[in-house]
This record gives sequence, C-alpha cells and structure tokens, in this order.
Amino acid sequence: MQSQTIFFKHAPRIVATSTVAGTKECRGIIGRYVETALTSDMFGEKTFEKAECKMLKTVIGGAIANAGMQPGDIDMLISGDLLNQIISASFAARDCGLPFLGVYGACSTMAESLAVGATFLDGGYANHVVAATGSHFASAERQYRYPLELGCTRPPQAQWTVTGAGAALLSREGSGVAITSATIGRVRDFGVTDVNNMGAAMAPAACDTILRHLRDTGRDPAYYDLIVTGDLGALGSRILKDLTWEKGTDISQNHVDCGEIIYDVIEDEFQGGSGAGCSAVVLNSYLYSKMKAGLLKRILFVATGALLSTVSSGQGESIPCIAHAVSLETLK
Amino acid sequence: MQSQTIFFKHAPRIVATSTVAGTKECRGIIGRYVETALTSDMFGEKTFEKAECKMLKTVIGGAIANAGMQPGDIDMLISGDLLNQIISASFAARDCGLPFLGVYGACSTMAESLAVGATFLDGGYANHVVAATGSHFASAERQYRYPLELGCTRPPQAQWTVTGAGAALLSREGSGVAITSATIGRVRDFGVTDVNNMGAAMAPAACDTILRHLRDTGRDPAYYDLIVTGDLGALGSRILKDLTWEKGTDISQNHVDCGEIIYDVIEDEFQGGSGAGCSAVVLNSYLYSKMKAGLLKRILFVATGALLSTVSSGQGESIPCIAHAVSLETLK
Repeated sequence: MQSQTIFFKHAPRIVATSTVAGTKECRGIIGRYVETALTSDMFGEKTFEKAECKMLKTVIGGAIANAGMQPGDIDMLISGDLLNQIISASFAARDCGLPFLGVYGACSTMAESLAVGATFLDGGYANHVVAATGSHFASAERQYRYPLELGCTRPPQAQWTVTGAGAALLSREGSGVAITSATIGRVRDFGVTDVNNMGAAMAPAACDTILRHLRDTGRDPAYYDLIVTGDLGALGSRILKDLTWEKGTDISQNHVDCGEIIYDVIEDEFQGGSGAGCSAVVLNSYLYSKMKAGLLKRILFVATGALLSTVSSGQGESIPCIAHAVSLETLK
Repeated sequence: MQSQTIFFKHAPRIVATSTVAGTKECRGIIGRYVETALTSDMFGEKTFEKAECKMLKTVIGGAIANAGMQPGDIDMLISGDLLNQIISASFAARDCGLPFLGVYGACSTMAESLAVGATFLDGGYANHVVAATGSHFASAERQYRYPLELGCTRPPQAQWTVTGAGAALLSREGSGVAITSATIGRVRDFGVTDVNNMGAAMAPAACDTILRHLRDTGRDPAYYDLIVTGDLGALGSRILKDLTWEKGTDISQNHVDCGEIIYDVIEDEFQGGSGAGCSAVVLNSYLYSKMKAGLLKRILFVATGALLSTVSSGQGESIPCIAHAVSLETLK
C-alpha cells in the first residue's frame, strides 16, 4: 500500500498568522489570542456572505502585514470556504490580486491549504504562500440548513458553525513553526445520514488519516504534544478516541478537538464548534501562540471535512468525509 | 513583479487519459475521439447529479486502466466540479478510495488540477496522480440557472454546458505528453454581471494569464502550435483576441477555444460549449490524440473559470474569473 504522507525536506515555516473571530467565539478560550475580535458579526457589511468574505480578506492582509511583507511578495493564495462555489475565497482573491488556487475540503480546508502550500514551497516552486479559510455561522445556516428567521430547534448532537477566519503565511525559509510532513486523506463514509451529526460522520475520516500518518511516519501518538482535530465536537471526539482505540492506538492522552475547546460550554452550541473557521482560528491564534512560546513543540493538526451538499442529502446519500493531517514542529 | 509561472524540471507526463461525453457532444468534432460515448445523458442513473458523478468515476477508472495500472498505484486524485460542494468529485473520490485533494476553479478545474498534480510529481512528492473533472448540462442548469422544466429561452450570448468528463493520469516518469510549466492565474473582474455571458466575463482572465505566461517564459505566441482556451465560446474568443491585441500580442493565428469547437453549430448552443467538462473532454480526447500522433507538438492549455454563485449574483456582485495555463509539449 502506498504511503499517503509527504515529507518536507526543507520544512517550510509558518512565519506569521492572522485571525478574526465573532462575538460568541471571543468569549471562549481563543478570545485572548485572536487578532481581530468582532463587536458585530455583520462586520460592517450588509449580508452575512459579505461579512464572511471581509473576514477572509482581513486575515489574508493581516498575515502579510504581520510578516512585514507586501502583497507583491506573495506568490500564491490557497484558499476555500464552505459557501457554494467558495465565493468568500474567490472574492477575497479578487480583491487581494494574488495568484489564486481555490481548494474545497469543507472544514478540512485549513489542513488542505497548508499541505498544498507546503508542497509548492518545499519543492522550490514558490517562496511565500498564504493559506487561509473561514466560515460564518449565519451564512452556513441559511445555505446548509434553514433560514435563521425560522428559529429551528437544534438537536443535541448538533454543533455551531464558527464565525471566524484564519490565515497562515508560509515561507520557504525563515524561522517559526515548521511544517514537516502532511498526510493526504481518503474519503471515508460510514453511512451517517444525519446532517446534524457531523462529529459522528467525520470521526472515521479522522481516525483513518491519523492512523495512516502514524504508520507512514513510524511514530507513536506520544511523539506529538497534541493531536488536534478540526471540528469533531465533543461527541465526535469521543467516537474518534473509541475508533482509534479499537484499532490498537490510544490517542486519549493527547487528543483535543478545536470544536470542543473553542466555546465555553453554554447551551446553544451543544457539541461545540464546527465550520472551516473553527480549526483555522484555533490553529492560527491559540495553538500558534503556544508553539511560538515553546509551550507546545509538536502538533499533528488534523482538520476534518464533511463533503456533503444539500442536493446529495436530498437525494438520500450519506455523508462522505475527509481529513488531512499536517505535522507542525518547532525546530531548533 | 513576481513570476506566476512554475517550471517543471522533470516535466511530468500525461501517460493516459479517459473521456466520456454526452449524446449532443458526440455529434461534434470530439465524437470520434471520446472513449465512452453516452447513448443517454442519464447514464443509467436516477438523477442528473448521480449521472455526473458516474461520468467522473468512469474516466478516473478509465485513465488508470488505460495506463495499465491499478488504483493502488495512484498516490492522489485531484478533482473538482461545478456542483455545490463539488459533490461529483467528492463522491467519486469516496468510491475510488484514493487520497483526495478537492479543488475548485469552476471551468478552470482541468488546468488547475493538472498544475497542482504536476507540482506534486515534479517535486518528488508523488509518482502517479489522476487529474479529473466533468460537468453535466442538466445538473448545471438547475443549480445555476432555472429548472429545465421551465423551458426558459436562452439569450444569444449564452453557452451550453457540456455533458462530459475527462481524466488525465500524470506520472513522474514515462513517455507521453509532458507538462513543462504552469501559470497560476489571478482573479480578474471587468464588472460583467450578465450570468448568460460567461465568455465576456472570462476573456479578461484568459488574457491576463496568457500574457503573463508569455512574459514569464520569454516566449512568443508562435512558440505554440495552439493556444487553447477552456470555454470562452465564439464571442469570448473574439473578445480575448481583441484584448491581447490591444496589449500588443497577436494570438489570432493559433488561438482556438474548446467551447467554440466542441459543437457543430446548431441553434441551441449559440456561442458554443462551457462547463468544466468542456475543456476536460476536448483536451483529453481530441487534443491528446493529436499530440500523441505528433500532429501537435506544443499546446498552451488555458482553462478559464467564472467564480460566481447564485448568491453572489443575487447580491449584485459582478463575476470574478480566473484562468490557469499549462504548457504541454511532446518531448523527444
């Protein structure tokens, strides 16, 4: 069987990041780490979709500025989001004027864009790349579920789409957190059809990718200070721990889920956060700060995505899911 | 200003291709070159979306078989399509079981997936990659425009979404058509808001990428036997020739557009074909055959994409467009 893991000889660095998060999100653990804390989730725009796009533009520009660079220094923007035809990323790319590769991996987009960006850098095909994604609670609700005005009741297995965006500026050289390898995931589908239970749908994909990463690298879970999944939520995280344990690997000692930690637990969010912005914000604010400060030295970042659409669900299909893993290390 | 062009030192090869096309498409020039000619555009499925997905699965499997390989030999599938959340590609990836990178570039997807795939191969991060995309007239109509049952009249500037799919199997080594460079496009938006006039919307993006490719490579248009755009259609192709001419570059001698050549001109299609499947089918059947036979030696393949959604149009936005270029050459 083929290796699914790419090893980066030159270990491209994350030299700067930038994040924006909504009002609800900033009340949680990331509040002190986010660069731009919104006071209104409309972000001065007339529609939720335009607010989402503005968040993405803000973090792309923010990451470039935080690295002390100009847009003209950047070879490529790699981005995607949850909206149909990734319009947030496409319109942000228009306004930034950068060469653009659109990607779609639903909530796995942060890991996918980091993996693709690191490949371009490591091979010498680019010097500086921005990887970015985001999501907005209100735009995701009305696209994937119901108009907010209906006031639908959320079931207890549901998660709450994070309003936020994160960007990482990757460089071929420099100091900062290094991307040492990436594992490209396969689509896994255990037959879950409940679109309110993303954690259960995505856990098998996370399990598959984590186990393959460990096998391909010959590593033990203890190699990592943290194995961080994207947005499985509390229930999905428990399922993941069970699934990996059944396969003979115990990740319970060092596994955390961005969706589980992003909110202070209050009633609305049930299982925690979801959305492409969830892992993007947690990685590029909280986790990046901890790594820069030397408090975390090795992280396996595993963003997970549910690749459904309202059409596929309407046609009776189950939810195919994917997870990509990126190994982040502070090198001397 | 940065170069937008990546040069592939090892020139990854397209070692095999596979194509499927619908009934209307097979009446045109590609009819004799397509591997699987459909007798019904439903392809034995119950919905248009499932038919689109089946076309994609067929060409992915076809390209692997035509290369004399097994799915286990393939490191990665890079694919996307026009449907919301790229469900055709995601479900095809589920059923193929390959590691999967989802990309979104609307009708530029064939060039984007070739460029990303060639980068992974050239840098030594993979040995065999499948790049694939497709589209279906009926699924695109009901998602982007109106239900077919309404029988809406098409305006004369409209194009016809191609029912078809194409896949290319790229290898790090081997014989066949070589990918020697790729130019990653920037999003261009000249303010066109007519969603029936994709040719006019996309022509500026094609112009920008072609001129940048020629500048980055120091080449003259005459270097290429053909400069092939994706799906500008007859009107868009004329606009492209005008735009490049205004910038001092004459491509009129060797420019053709896949959308313009795919159909025998009959009333329905007006300006010709469009859709991600348009350039995917023409490249992987007709053009690939001509290159393999030595009748064409150098092609600049420039697939163009309109990155709009029904939501962005509904909110009054214009149509942001992109074009990626891939240089294909038969090397000795």
